[in-house]
Amino acid sequence: MKYKKVLVTGSSGFIGKHLVDELLLQGHRVVGLDICANSSPKKRGYNFLKGRVELKQLQQIPFKPDWIFHCAGGGSVGFAEADPQHDFQMNVGTSIEVLSFARNINPPPRIVYLSSAAVYGNTGSKRHPEKSSARPCSSYGFHKKMAESAFHFYGKRWAIPSVVIRIFSVYGEGLTKQVFWDAARKLRTGKGTFSGTGKETRDFIHIQDVCRFLVCSVKQASTIPPIFNCGWGKAISIRTALTLLAKNLRAKEPKFSGKVREGDPRHLVADSSLAMRIGWRPSVDFHEGIRRYAEWVKRN
Amino acid sequence: MKYKKVLVTGSSGFIGKHLVDELLLQGHRVVGLDICANSSPKKRGYNFLKGRVELKQLQQIPFKPDWIFHCAGGGSVGFAEADPQHDFQMNVGTSIEVLSFARNINPPPRIVYLSSAAVYGNTGSKRHPEKSSARPCSSYGFHKKMAESAFHFYGKRWAIPSVVIRIFSVYGEGLTKQVFWDAARKLRTGKGTFSGTGKETRDFIHIQDVCRFLVCSVKQASTIPPIFNCGWGKAISIRTALTLLAKNLRAKEPKFSGKVREGDPRHLVADSSLAMRIGWRPSVDFHEGIRRYAEWVKRN
Repeated sequence: MKYKKVLVTGSSGFIGKHLVDELLLQGHRVVGLDICANSSPKKRGYNFLKGRVELKQLQQIPFKPDWIFHCAGGGSVGFAEADPQHDFQMNVGTSIEVLSFARNINPPPRIVYLSSAAVYGNTGSKRHPEKSSARPCSSYGFHKKMAESAFHFYGKRWAIPSVVIRIFSVYGEGLTKQVFWDAARKLRTGKGTFSGTGKETRDFIHIQDVCRFLVCSVKQASTIPPIFNCGWGKAISIRTALTLLAKNLRAKEPKFSGKVREGDPRHLVADSSLAMRIGWRPSVDFHEGIRRYAEWVKRN
Repeated sequence: MKYKKVLVTGSSGFIGKHLVDELLLQGHRVVGLDICANSSPKKRGYNFLKGRVELKQLQQIPFKPDWIFHCAGGGSVGFAEADPQHDFQMNVGTSIEVLSFARNINPPPRIVYLSSAAVYGNTGSKRHPEKSSARPCSSYGFHKKMAESAFHFYGKRWAIPSVVIRIFSVYGEGLTKQVFWDAARKLRTGKGTFSGTGKETRDFIHIQDVCRFLVCSVKQASTIPPIFNCGWGKAISIRTALTLLAKNLRAKEPKFSGKVREGDPRHLVADSSLAMRIGWRPSVDFHEGIRRYAEWVKRN
Protein backbone atom coordinates (compact mmCIF):
# COMPACT_ATOMS: atom_id res chain seq x y z
CA MET A 1 0.00 0.00 0.00
CA LYS A 2 1.16 3.51 -0.83
CA TYR A 3 1.69 5.59 2.29
CA LYS A 4 -0.96 8.13 3.21
CA LYS A 5 -0.66 11.69 4.45
CA VAL A 6 -2.33 11.68 7.82
CA LEU A 7 -3.36 14.39 10.25
CA VAL A 8 -3.88 13.39 13.88
CA THR A 9 -5.54 16.01 16.08
CA GLY A 10 -4.90 15.61 19.79
CA SER A 11 -1.65 13.86 18.94
CA SER A 12 -0.18 14.44 22.40
CA GLY A 13 -3.09 12.79 24.17
CA PHE A 14 -3.26 9.19 25.33
CA ILE A 15 -4.93 7.76 22.23
CA GLY A 16 -3.35 10.27 19.81
CA LYS A 17 0.18 9.40 20.89
CA HIS A 18 -0.31 5.65 20.46
CA LEU A 19 -2.14 6.19 17.18
CA VAL A 20 0.72 8.26 15.75
CA ASP A 21 3.09 5.39 16.59
CA GLU A 22 0.80 2.85 14.91
CA LEU A 23 0.53 5.02 11.77
CA LEU A 24 4.31 5.55 11.62
CA LEU A 25 4.81 1.81 12.07
CA GLN A 26 2.55 1.22 9.05
CA GLY A 27 4.69 3.61 6.99
CA HIS A 28 2.39 6.63 6.78
CA ARG A 29 3.44 10.26 6.81
CA VAL A 30 2.01 11.93 9.89
CA VAL A 31 1.43 15.43 11.16
CA GLY A 32 0.13 15.92 14.69
CA LEU A 33 -1.75 18.92 16.04
CA ASP A 34 -2.15 19.46 19.75
CA ILE A 35 -2.32 22.27 22.26
CA CYS A 36 0.18 20.33 24.43
CA ALA A 37 3.65 19.63 23.12
CA ASN A 38 4.88 16.57 24.92
CA SER A 39 5.26 13.98 22.26
CA SER A 40 8.89 14.29 21.05
CA PRO A 41 7.91 14.39 17.37
CA LYS A 42 11.43 14.57 15.86
CA LYS A 43 12.66 11.50 17.66
CA ARG A 44 9.56 9.57 16.60
CA GLY A 45 9.66 10.81 13.01
CA TYR A 46 6.58 12.94 12.46
CA ASN A 47 5.67 16.59 12.01
CA PHE A 48 4.11 18.40 14.88
CA LEU A 49 2.15 21.63 15.04
CA LYS A 50 1.43 23.14 18.43
CA GLY A 51 -1.91 24.87 18.62
CA ARG A 52 -5.65 24.67 18.94
CA VAL A 53 -7.83 22.66 16.60
CA GLU A 54 -8.97 25.73 14.69
CA LEU A 55 -9.36 26.36 10.99
CA LYS A 56 -6.42 28.79 10.91
CA GLN A 57 -4.11 26.23 12.52
CA LEU A 58 -5.39 23.40 10.38
CA GLN A 59 -4.59 25.42 7.27
CA GLN A 60 -0.93 25.51 8.40
CA ILE A 61 -0.34 21.80 8.07
CA PRO A 62 2.26 21.00 5.42
CA PHE A 63 0.15 18.76 3.17
CA LYS A 64 -3.39 18.01 2.04
CA PRO A 65 -4.29 15.10 4.29
CA ASP A 66 -5.69 11.90 2.86
CA TRP A 67 -6.89 10.88 6.30
CA ILE A 68 -7.74 12.78 9.46
CA PHE A 69 -8.05 11.14 12.86
CA HIS A 70 -9.90 13.58 15.06
CA CYS A 71 -8.67 12.49 18.49
CA ALA A 72 -8.71 15.97 20.10
CA GLY A 73 -11.50 16.60 22.56
CA GLY A 74 -12.38 16.53 26.22
CA GLY A 75 -11.91 13.08 27.67
CA SER A 76 -13.40 13.34 31.12
CA VAL A 77 -17.00 12.91 32.25
CA GLY A 78 -16.19 14.65 35.54
CA PHE A 79 -14.57 17.74 34.00
CA ALA A 80 -17.43 18.06 31.53
CA GLU A 81 -19.96 18.15 34.38
CA ALA A 82 -17.95 20.87 36.11
CA ASP A 83 -17.41 22.97 32.99
CA PRO A 84 -19.79 21.88 30.24
CA GLN A 85 -19.07 24.93 28.11
CA HIS A 86 -15.39 24.04 27.86
CA ASP A 87 -16.18 20.43 27.07
CA PHE A 88 -18.63 21.58 24.38
CA GLN A 89 -15.89 23.65 22.77
CA MET A 90 -13.37 20.80 22.95
CA ASN A 91 -15.69 18.14 21.59
CA VAL A 92 -18.24 19.85 19.35
CA GLY A 93 -16.40 23.08 18.49
CA THR A 94 -13.24 21.30 17.31
CA SER A 95 -15.30 18.85 15.23
CA ILE A 96 -16.91 21.75 13.37
CA GLU A 97 -13.43 23.21 12.75
CA VAL A 98 -12.17 19.90 11.36
CA LEU A 99 -15.24 19.56 9.13
CA SER A 100 -14.92 23.15 7.91
CA PHE A 101 -11.30 22.43 7.06
CA ALA A 102 -12.16 19.18 5.25
CA ARG A 103 -14.99 20.86 3.30
CA ASN A 104 -12.48 22.93 1.35
CA ILE A 105 -10.08 20.13 0.47
CA ASN A 106 -10.49 18.46 -2.89
CA PRO A 107 -10.82 15.49 -2.79
CA PRO A 108 -11.99 15.64 0.83
CA PRO A 109 -10.00 13.57 3.31
CA ARG A 110 -11.44 10.55 5.07
CA ILE A 111 -12.10 11.38 8.69
CA VAL A 112 -12.18 9.01 11.63
CA TYR A 113 -14.07 10.58 14.51
CA LEU A 114 -13.28 9.26 17.98
CA SER A 115 -16.58 9.21 19.78
CA SER A 116 -17.37 7.45 23.01
CA ALA A 117 -19.57 4.77 24.57
CA ALA A 118 -20.82 7.62 26.77
CA VAL A 119 -23.34 8.49 24.03
CA TYR A 120 -25.38 5.43 25.07
CA GLY A 121 -26.13 6.65 28.58
CA ASN A 122 -27.71 4.60 31.29
CA THR A 123 -29.42 1.85 29.40
CA GLY A 124 -28.82 -1.37 31.30
CA SER A 125 -26.29 -4.15 31.37
CA LYS A 126 -26.89 -5.66 27.93
CA ARG A 127 -24.34 -5.34 25.16
CA HIS A 128 -24.98 -2.27 23.05
CA PRO A 129 -25.10 -2.71 19.32
CA GLU A 130 -24.53 0.55 17.39
CA LYS A 131 -28.21 0.89 16.61
CA SER A 132 -29.12 1.12 20.33
CA SER A 133 -30.77 4.36 21.31
CA ALA A 134 -28.20 7.00 22.25
CA ARG A 135 -29.48 8.84 25.32
CA PRO A 136 -26.39 10.18 27.05
CA CYS A 137 -26.62 10.86 30.78
CA SER A 138 -23.52 13.09 30.95
CA SER A 139 -22.66 16.37 29.27
CA TYR A 140 -19.60 14.62 27.88
CA GLY A 141 -21.77 11.97 26.21
CA PHE A 142 -24.21 14.60 24.98
CA HIS A 143 -21.42 16.62 23.37
CA LYS A 144 -19.98 13.49 21.75
CA LYS A 145 -23.43 12.77 20.32
CA MET A 146 -23.72 16.35 19.02
CA ALA A 147 -20.34 15.99 17.32
CA GLU A 148 -21.40 12.68 15.77
CA SER A 149 -24.45 14.40 14.31
CA ALA A 150 -22.20 17.09 12.83
CA PHE A 151 -20.15 14.45 10.98
CA HIS A 152 -23.40 13.01 9.75
CA PHE A 153 -24.91 16.31 8.56
CA TYR A 154 -21.78 17.92 7.11
CA GLY A 155 -20.77 14.61 5.58
CA LYS A 156 -23.96 14.34 3.62
CA ARG A 157 -24.14 18.06 2.84
CA TRP A 158 -20.58 18.49 1.55
CA ALA A 159 -19.62 14.93 0.64
CA ILE A 160 -17.05 14.51 3.40
CA PRO A 161 -16.51 10.81 4.09
CA SER A 162 -16.17 9.89 7.75
CA VAL A 163 -16.59 7.05 10.19
CA VAL A 164 -17.63 7.30 13.84
CA ILE A 165 -15.95 5.05 16.42
CA ARG A 166 -17.59 4.73 19.82
CA ILE A 167 -14.73 3.73 22.04
CA PHE A 168 -15.48 1.95 25.30
CA SER A 169 -13.16 2.00 28.33
CA VAL A 170 -9.76 2.32 26.71
CA TYR A 171 -6.73 1.89 28.94
CA GLY A 172 -3.06 1.06 28.65
CA GLU A 173 0.48 2.29 28.98
CA GLY A 174 0.59 6.06 29.02
CA LEU A 175 -2.86 6.61 30.49
CA THR A 176 -2.58 9.34 33.08
CA LYS A 177 -6.23 10.04 33.71
CA GLN A 178 -9.50 8.22 34.41
CA VAL A 179 -10.14 5.32 36.72
CA PHE A 180 -6.89 3.33 36.38
CA TRP A 181 -4.56 6.25 36.84
CA ASP A 182 -6.55 7.48 39.80
CA ALA A 183 -6.58 3.91 41.08
CA ALA A 184 -2.87 3.40 40.64
CA ARG A 185 -2.20 6.43 42.83
CA LYS A 186 -4.77 5.53 45.46
CA LEU A 187 -3.79 1.87 45.63
CA ARG A 188 -0.08 2.61 45.97
CA THR A 189 -0.58 5.17 48.73
CA GLY A 190 -3.31 3.10 50.38
CA LYS A 191 -5.32 6.30 50.71
CA GLY A 192 -8.78 7.18 49.42
CA THR A 193 -11.84 5.27 48.33
CA PHE A 194 -13.37 4.86 44.89
CA SER A 195 -16.68 6.30 43.79
CA GLY A 196 -19.53 3.90 43.11
CA THR A 197 -20.23 0.47 44.57
CA GLY A 198 -17.62 -1.48 42.63
CA LYS A 199 -20.41 -3.46 40.97
CA GLU A 200 -20.60 -1.05 38.04
CA THR A 201 -19.27 -2.70 34.90
CA ARG A 202 -17.21 -1.45 31.99
CA ASP A 203 -15.91 -2.91 28.78
CA PHE A 204 -12.15 -2.47 28.98
CA ILE A 205 -10.21 -2.39 25.75
CA HIS A 206 -6.45 -2.03 25.43
CA ILE A 207 -5.04 0.96 23.56
CA GLN A 208 -3.15 -1.29 21.14
CA ASP A 209 -6.40 -2.89 19.99
CA VAL A 210 -8.12 0.48 19.72
CA CYS A 211 -5.37 1.94 17.53
CA ARG A 212 -5.36 -1.07 15.24
CA PHE A 213 -9.09 -0.73 14.83
CA LEU A 214 -8.93 3.02 14.18
CA VAL A 215 -6.57 2.52 11.25
CA CYS A 216 -8.58 -0.46 10.02
CA SER A 217 -11.79 1.62 10.08
CA VAL A 218 -10.61 4.35 7.66
CA LYS A 219 -11.65 2.39 4.61
CA GLN A 220 -15.25 2.33 5.93
CA ALA A 221 -15.51 6.13 5.77
CA SER A 222 -18.60 7.26 3.91
CA THR A 223 -20.55 10.47 3.40
CA ILE A 224 -23.25 8.78 5.47
CA PRO A 225 -20.85 7.88 8.25
CA PRO A 226 -21.14 4.36 9.62
CA ILE A 227 -20.84 3.93 13.39
CA PHE A 228 -18.71 1.25 15.02
CA ASN A 229 -18.39 0.22 18.63
CA CYS A 230 -14.90 -0.49 19.78
CA GLY A 231 -14.86 -2.65 22.89
CA TRP A 232 -13.92 -6.17 23.89
CA GLY A 233 -17.54 -7.17 24.46
CA LYS A 234 -17.05 -8.35 28.04
CA ALA A 235 -18.50 -6.73 31.17
CA ILE A 236 -15.87 -6.45 33.92
CA SER A 237 -16.87 -4.99 37.27
CA ILE A 238 -14.86 -2.06 38.56
CA ARG A 239 -14.11 -4.10 41.70
CA THR A 240 -12.69 -6.97 39.64
CA ALA A 241 -10.66 -4.56 37.53
CA LEU A 242 -9.19 -2.63 40.45
CA THR A 243 -8.53 -5.78 42.47
CA LEU A 244 -6.52 -7.15 39.55
CA LEU A 245 -4.63 -3.88 39.25
CA ALA A 246 -3.97 -3.92 43.01
CA LYS A 247 -2.55 -7.44 42.76
CA ASN A 248 -0.24 -6.42 39.93
CA LEU A 249 0.91 -3.43 41.95
CA ARG A 250 1.18 -5.55 45.12
CA ALA A 251 -1.20 -3.11 46.81
CA LYS A 252 -4.20 -3.54 49.12
CA GLU A 253 -7.69 -4.20 47.77
CA PRO A 254 -9.76 -1.16 46.74
CA LYS A 255 -12.53 0.33 48.88
CA PHE A 256 -15.69 1.88 47.45
CA SER A 257 -17.69 4.83 48.73
CA GLY A 258 -20.99 3.46 47.47
CA LYS A 259 -21.78 6.87 46.01
CA VAL A 260 -22.17 6.87 42.23
CA ARG A 261 -20.71 9.91 40.49
CA GLU A 262 -23.04 12.18 38.53
CA GLY A 263 -23.01 11.32 34.84
CA ASP A 264 -21.58 7.82 35.29
CA PRO A 265 -23.80 5.08 33.87
CA ARG A 266 -23.92 1.80 35.82
CA HIS A 267 -23.01 -0.43 32.93
CA LEU A 268 -21.42 0.04 29.53
CA VAL A 269 -20.67 -3.02 27.42
CA ALA A 270 -20.13 -3.12 23.68
CA ASP A 271 -21.54 -5.37 21.07
CA SER A 272 -18.57 -5.13 18.72
CA SER A 273 -19.74 -7.62 16.13
CA LEU A 274 -19.87 -4.94 13.43
CA ALA A 275 -16.18 -4.15 13.99
CA MET A 276 -15.36 -7.86 13.88
CA ARG A 277 -17.22 -8.16 10.60
CA ILE A 278 -14.69 -5.84 8.97
CA GLY A 279 -11.83 -8.05 10.10
CA TRP A 280 -10.79 -6.63 13.46
CA ARG A 281 -10.10 -8.83 16.47
CA PRO A 282 -9.00 -7.47 19.86
CA SER A 283 -5.91 -9.31 21.00
CA VAL A 284 -4.73 -7.94 24.34
CA ASP A 285 -6.95 -9.55 26.97
CA PHE A 286 -7.66 -7.84 30.25
CA HIS A 287 -5.19 -9.82 32.37
CA GLU A 288 -2.38 -9.17 29.94
CA GLY A 289 -3.39 -5.51 29.51
CA ILE A 290 -3.49 -4.82 33.24
CA ARG A 291 -0.17 -6.60 33.73
CA ARG A 292 1.40 -4.29 31.11
CA TYR A 293 -0.27 -1.22 32.58
CA ALA A 294 0.93 -2.05 36.10
CA GLU A 295 4.48 -2.53 34.77
CA TRP A 296 4.28 0.87 33.12
CA VAL A 297 2.93 2.48 36.32
CA LYS A 298 5.81 1.01 38.32
CA ARG A 299 8.35 2.34 35.81
CA ASN A 300 6.84 5.87 35.92
CA MET B 1 -48.63 41.13 37.31
CA LYS B 2 -45.37 42.16 38.93
CA TYR B 3 -42.81 43.23 36.36
CA LYS B 4 -40.05 40.81 35.43
CA LYS B 5 -36.35 41.35 34.90
CA VAL B 6 -35.72 40.28 31.34
CA LEU B 7 -32.60 39.71 29.27
CA VAL B 8 -32.96 39.83 25.50
CA THR B 9 -29.94 38.60 23.52
CA GLY B 10 -29.73 39.88 19.96
CA SER B 11 -31.72 42.93 21.06
CA SER B 12 -30.60 45.01 18.06
CA GLY B 13 -31.83 42.42 15.55
CA PHE B 14 -35.16 42.46 13.78
CA ILE B 15 -37.04 40.26 16.23
CA GLY B 16 -35.05 41.40 19.30
CA LYS B 17 -35.84 45.06 18.72
CA HIS B 18 -39.58 44.49 18.39
CA LEU B 19 -39.56 42.11 21.35
CA VAL B 20 -37.85 44.68 23.59
CA ASP B 21 -40.61 47.15 22.70
CA GLU B 22 -43.32 44.61 23.48
CA LEU B 23 -41.71 43.78 26.84
CA LEU B 24 -41.34 47.47 27.74
CA LEU B 25 -44.97 48.02 26.75
CA GLN B 26 -45.97 45.26 29.17
CA GLY B 27 -44.04 47.02 31.94
CA HIS B 28 -41.05 44.73 32.28
CA ARG B 29 -37.51 45.79 33.08
CA VAL B 30 -35.29 44.93 30.13
CA VAL B 31 -31.59 44.59 29.40
CA GLY B 32 -30.46 43.95 25.86
CA LEU B 33 -27.21 42.34 24.73
CA ASP B 34 -26.02 42.60 21.16
CA ILE B 35 -22.82 42.90 19.20
CA CYS B 36 -24.45 45.73 17.20
CA ALA B 37 -25.49 48.91 18.96
CA ASN B 38 -28.26 50.40 16.91
CA SER B 39 -31.28 50.31 19.09
CA SER B 40 -31.30 53.68 20.93
CA PRO B 41 -31.80 52.07 24.34
CA LYS B 42 -32.00 55.24 26.44
CA LYS B 43 -34.75 56.79 24.38
CA ARG B 44 -36.72 53.56 24.53
CA GLY B 45 -36.11 53.01 28.23
CA TYR B 46 -34.01 49.91 28.62
CA ASN B 47 -30.47 48.94 29.53
CA PHE B 48 -28.13 47.90 26.79
CA LEU B 49 -24.85 46.02 26.85
CA LYS B 50 -22.77 45.92 23.70
CA GLY B 51 -20.90 42.66 23.25
CA ARG B 52 -20.92 39.04 22.24
CA VAL B 53 -23.22 36.48 23.79
CA GLU B 54 -20.50 35.02 25.99
CA LEU B 55 -20.48 33.99 29.61
CA LYS B 56 -18.22 36.89 30.62
CA GLN B 57 -20.52 39.44 29.02
CA LEU B 58 -23.64 37.79 30.38
CA GLN B 59 -22.20 38.03 33.87
CA GLN B 60 -22.05 41.83 33.43
CA ILE B 61 -25.80 42.33 33.19
CA PRO B 62 -27.13 44.43 36.09
CA PHE B 63 -29.66 41.94 37.51
CA LYS B 64 -30.45 38.27 37.86
CA PRO B 65 -32.90 37.77 35.01
CA ASP B 66 -36.25 36.11 35.60
CA TRP B 67 -36.61 35.55 31.89
CA ILE B 68 -34.17 35.26 29.00
CA PHE B 69 -35.21 35.54 25.36
CA HIS B 70 -32.36 34.12 23.34
CA CYS B 71 -32.89 35.94 20.03
CA ALA B 72 -29.20 36.20 19.07
CA GLY B 73 -28.05 33.89 16.32
CA GLY B 74 -27.45 33.68 12.61
CA GLY B 75 -30.61 34.34 10.66
CA SER B 76 -29.71 33.51 7.11
CA VAL B 77 -29.81 30.17 5.32
CA GLY B 78 -27.55 31.55 2.58
CA PHE B 79 -24.84 32.89 4.90
CA ALA B 80 -24.85 29.64 6.85
CA GLU B 81 -24.17 27.64 3.69
CA ALA B 82 -21.28 29.94 2.81
CA ASP B 83 -19.76 29.93 6.31
CA PRO B 84 -21.22 27.09 8.37
CA GLN B 85 -18.62 27.46 11.08
CA HIS B 86 -19.66 31.03 11.81
CA ASP B 87 -23.34 30.10 11.80
CA PHE B 88 -22.56 27.22 14.18
CA GLN B 89 -20.91 29.64 16.59
CA MET B 90 -23.77 32.13 16.35
CA ASN B 91 -26.55 29.60 16.79
CA VAL B 92 -25.15 26.71 18.83
CA GLY B 93 -22.18 28.39 20.54
CA THR B 94 -24.25 31.28 21.92
CA SER B 95 -26.93 28.87 23.15
CA ILE B 96 -24.34 26.98 25.19
CA GLU B 97 -23.15 30.29 26.64
CA VAL B 98 -26.69 31.27 27.63
CA LEU B 99 -27.29 27.85 29.21
CA SER B 100 -23.96 27.96 31.06
CA PHE B 101 -24.95 31.38 32.40
CA ALA B 102 -28.44 30.19 33.45
CA ARG B 103 -27.03 27.08 35.12
CA ASN B 104 -25.40 29.20 37.81
CA ILE B 105 -28.40 31.40 38.59
CA ASN B 106 -30.61 30.38 41.48
CA PRO B 107 -33.51 30.07 40.81
CA PRO B 108 -32.69 29.56 37.13
CA PRO B 109 -34.36 31.97 34.69
CA ARG B 110 -37.00 30.83 32.23
CA ILE B 111 -35.53 30.83 28.75
CA VAL B 112 -37.37 31.24 25.47
CA TYR B 113 -35.26 29.92 22.62
CA LEU B 114 -36.00 31.29 19.17
CA SER B 115 -35.62 28.35 16.83
CA SER B 116 -36.77 28.14 13.26
CA ALA B 117 -39.06 26.24 10.90
CA ALA B 118 -35.82 25.41 9.05
CA VAL B 119 -35.35 22.45 11.43
CA TYR B 120 -38.11 20.61 9.52
CA GLY B 121 -36.29 20.51 6.20
CA ASN B 122 -37.78 19.44 2.93
CA THR B 123 -40.76 17.39 3.97
CA GLY B 124 -43.62 18.33 1.69
CA SER B 125 -46.44 20.81 1.58
CA LYS B 126 -48.48 19.60 4.53
CA ARG B 127 -48.73 21.61 7.73
CA HIS B 128 -46.05 20.62 10.20
CA PRO B 129 -47.10 19.83 13.72
CA GLU B 130 -44.27 20.07 16.25
CA LYS B 131 -43.93 16.29 16.44
CA SER B 132 -43.04 16.06 12.71
CA SER B 133 -39.62 14.63 12.05
CA ALA B 134 -36.95 17.34 12.04
CA ARG B 135 -34.57 16.63 9.16
CA PRO B 136 -33.06 19.99 8.25
CA CYS B 137 -31.74 20.43 4.72
CA SER B 138 -29.63 23.51 5.48
CA SER B 139 -26.71 24.09 7.84
CA TYR B 140 -28.77 26.83 9.42
CA GLY B 141 -31.59 24.41 10.18
CA PHE B 142 -29.13 21.78 11.41
CA HIS B 143 -27.52 24.26 13.81
CA LYS B 144 -30.93 25.38 15.10
CA LYS B 145 -31.76 21.73 15.76
CA MET B 146 -28.44 21.24 17.59
CA ALA B 147 -29.22 24.26 19.76
CA GLU B 148 -32.70 22.92 20.51
CA SER B 149 -31.14 19.67 21.68
CA ALA B 150 -28.84 21.65 23.99
CA PHE B 151 -31.83 23.32 25.67
CA HIS B 152 -33.33 19.90 26.04
CA PHE B 153 -30.25 18.23 27.50
CA TYR B 154 -29.01 21.06 29.74
CA GLY B 155 -32.58 21.77 30.81
CA LYS B 156 -33.05 18.27 32.11
CA ARG B 157 -29.54 17.98 33.48
CA TRP B 158 -29.47 21.25 35.44
CA ALA B 159 -33.16 22.02 35.87
CA ILE B 160 -33.18 25.04 33.56
CA PRO B 161 -36.73 25.68 32.33
CA SER B 162 -37.01 26.65 28.69
CA VAL B 163 -39.38 26.64 25.76
CA VAL B 164 -38.46 26.28 22.08
CA ILE B 165 -40.30 28.36 19.48
CA ARG B 166 -39.98 27.35 15.84
CA ILE B 167 -40.68 30.57 14.02
CA PHE B 168 -41.86 30.38 10.42
CA SER B 169 -41.39 33.21 7.89
CA VAL B 170 -41.46 36.28 10.11
CA TYR B 171 -41.62 39.66 8.41
CA GLY B 172 -42.62 43.22 9.19
CA GLU B 173 -41.49 46.77 9.67
CA GLY B 174 -37.76 46.92 10.30
CA LEU B 175 -36.85 43.78 8.39
CA THR B 176 -33.72 44.52 6.39
CA LYS B 177 -32.80 41.04 5.25
CA GLN B 178 -34.36 37.94 3.70
CA VAL B 179 -36.81 37.71 0.86
CA PHE B 180 -38.94 40.83 1.41
CA TRP B 181 -36.07 43.23 1.88
CA ASP B 182 -34.28 41.81 -1.12
CA ALA B 183 -37.58 41.99 -3.00
CA ALA B 184 -38.30 45.57 -2.00
CA ARG B 185 -34.97 46.63 -3.50
CA LYS B 186 -35.32 44.56 -6.65
CA LEU B 187 -38.93 45.52 -7.26
CA ARG B 188 -38.29 49.23 -6.81
CA THR B 189 -35.29 49.25 -9.13
CA GLY B 190 -36.93 46.84 -11.58
CA LYS B 191 -33.64 44.94 -11.68
CA GLY B 192 -32.87 41.33 -10.89
CA THR B 193 -34.82 38.11 -10.70
CA PHE B 194 -35.75 35.99 -7.71
CA SER B 195 -34.40 32.53 -6.96
CA GLY B 196 -36.78 29.62 -7.21
CA THR B 197 -39.88 29.15 -9.34
CA GLY B 198 -42.24 31.37 -7.35
CA LYS B 199 -44.36 28.31 -6.56
CA GLU B 200 -42.48 27.62 -3.34
CA THR B 201 -44.68 28.35 -0.36
CA ARG B 202 -44.02 29.87 3.03
CA ASP B 203 -46.04 30.57 6.12
CA PHE B 204 -45.72 34.31 6.67
CA ILE B 205 -46.25 35.64 10.14
CA HIS B 206 -46.08 39.27 11.17
CA ILE B 207 -43.51 40.36 13.75
CA GLN B 208 -46.20 41.78 16.04
CA ASP B 209 -47.86 38.37 16.30
CA VAL B 210 -44.52 36.65 16.84
CA CYS B 211 -43.55 38.98 19.70
CA ARG B 212 -46.91 38.57 21.41
CA PHE B 213 -46.50 34.81 21.20
CA LEU B 214 -42.94 34.89 22.52
CA VAL B 215 -44.01 36.70 25.68
CA CYS B 216 -47.08 34.49 26.01
CA SER B 217 -44.92 31.34 25.75
CA VAL B 218 -42.69 32.09 28.77
CA LYS B 219 -45.09 30.51 31.21
CA GLN B 220 -44.80 27.21 29.31
CA ALA B 221 -41.07 26.93 30.06
CA SER B 222 -40.17 23.58 31.54
CA THR B 223 -37.03 21.57 32.25
CA ILE B 224 -38.24 19.27 29.48
CA PRO B 225 -38.74 22.12 27.03
CA PRO B 226 -41.96 22.06 25.05
CA ILE B 227 -41.74 23.01 21.38
CA PHE B 228 -44.19 25.40 19.71
CA ASN B 229 -44.59 26.33 16.08
CA CYS B 230 -45.21 29.99 15.44
CA GLY B 231 -46.82 30.56 12.05
CA TRP B 232 -50.16 31.64 10.64
CA GLY B 233 -50.92 28.18 9.28
CA LYS B 234 -51.49 29.28 5.70
CA ALA B 235 -49.31 28.43 2.67
CA ILE B 236 -48.66 31.50 0.52
CA SER B 237 -46.62 31.12 -2.63
CA ILE B 238 -43.58 33.35 -3.03
CA ARG B 239 -45.07 34.63 -6.28
CA THR B 240 -48.32 35.66 -4.56
CA ALA B 241 -46.38 37.30 -1.73
CA LEU B 242 -44.03 39.26 -3.96
CA THR B 243 -46.82 40.27 -6.37
CA LEU B 244 -48.74 41.72 -3.42
CA LEU B 245 -45.64 43.54 -2.22
CA ALA B 246 -45.05 44.87 -5.76
CA LYS B 247 -48.63 46.20 -5.90
CA ASN B 248 -48.19 47.97 -2.57
CA LEU B 249 -44.93 49.47 -3.81
CA ARG B 250 -46.49 50.30 -7.21
CA ALA B 251 -43.73 48.26 -8.82
CA LYS B 252 -43.64 45.71 -11.65
CA GLU B 253 -44.40 42.05 -11.09
CA PRO B 254 -41.50 39.83 -9.91
CA LYS B 255 -39.56 37.49 -12.22
CA PHE B 256 -38.18 34.13 -11.11
CA SER B 257 -34.97 32.43 -12.18
CA GLY B 258 -36.40 28.94 -11.78
CA LYS B 259 -33.28 27.92 -9.90
CA VAL B 260 -33.91 26.84 -6.32
CA ARG B 261 -31.24 27.98 -3.84
CA GLU B 262 -29.26 25.34 -1.97
CA GLY B 263 -30.73 24.71 1.47
CA ASP B 264 -34.16 26.17 0.68
CA PRO B 265 -37.04 23.73 1.20
CA ARG B 266 -39.92 23.96 -1.29
CA HIS B 267 -42.65 24.33 1.28
CA LEU B 268 -42.81 25.29 4.94
CA VAL B 269 -46.20 25.64 6.58
CA ALA B 270 -46.96 25.51 10.28
CA ASP B 271 -49.57 23.63 12.19
CA SER B 272 -49.82 26.14 15.03
CA SER B 273 -52.69 24.52 16.89
CA LEU B 274 -50.51 23.94 19.96
CA ALA B 275 -49.78 27.68 20.19
CA MET B 276 -53.45 28.43 19.81
CA ARG B 277 -54.25 26.01 22.59
CA ILE B 278 -52.34 28.22 25.02
CA GLY B 279 -54.41 31.23 24.04
CA TRP B 280 -52.48 32.84 21.20
CA ARG B 281 -54.16 34.06 18.01
CA PRO B 282 -52.29 35.76 15.16
CA SER B 283 -54.03 39.01 14.28
CA VAL B 284 -52.16 40.77 11.49
CA ASP B 285 -53.23 39.04 8.29
CA PHE B 286 -50.95 38.93 5.28
CA HIS B 287 -52.62 41.73 3.30
CA GLU B 288 -52.50 44.07 6.27
CA GLY B 289 -48.95 43.01 7.15
CA ILE B 290 -47.62 43.58 3.63
CA ARG B 291 -49.39 46.94 3.44
CA ARG B 292 -47.63 48.02 6.65
CA TYR B 293 -44.30 46.67 5.46
CA ALA B 294 -44.57 48.47 2.11
CA GLU B 295 -45.38 51.71 3.94
CA TRP B 296 -42.32 51.26 6.07
CA VAL B 297 -40.14 50.50 3.04
CA LYS B 298 -41.36 53.69 1.34
CA ARG B 299 -40.55 55.73 4.44
CA ASN B 300 -37.01 54.28 4.68
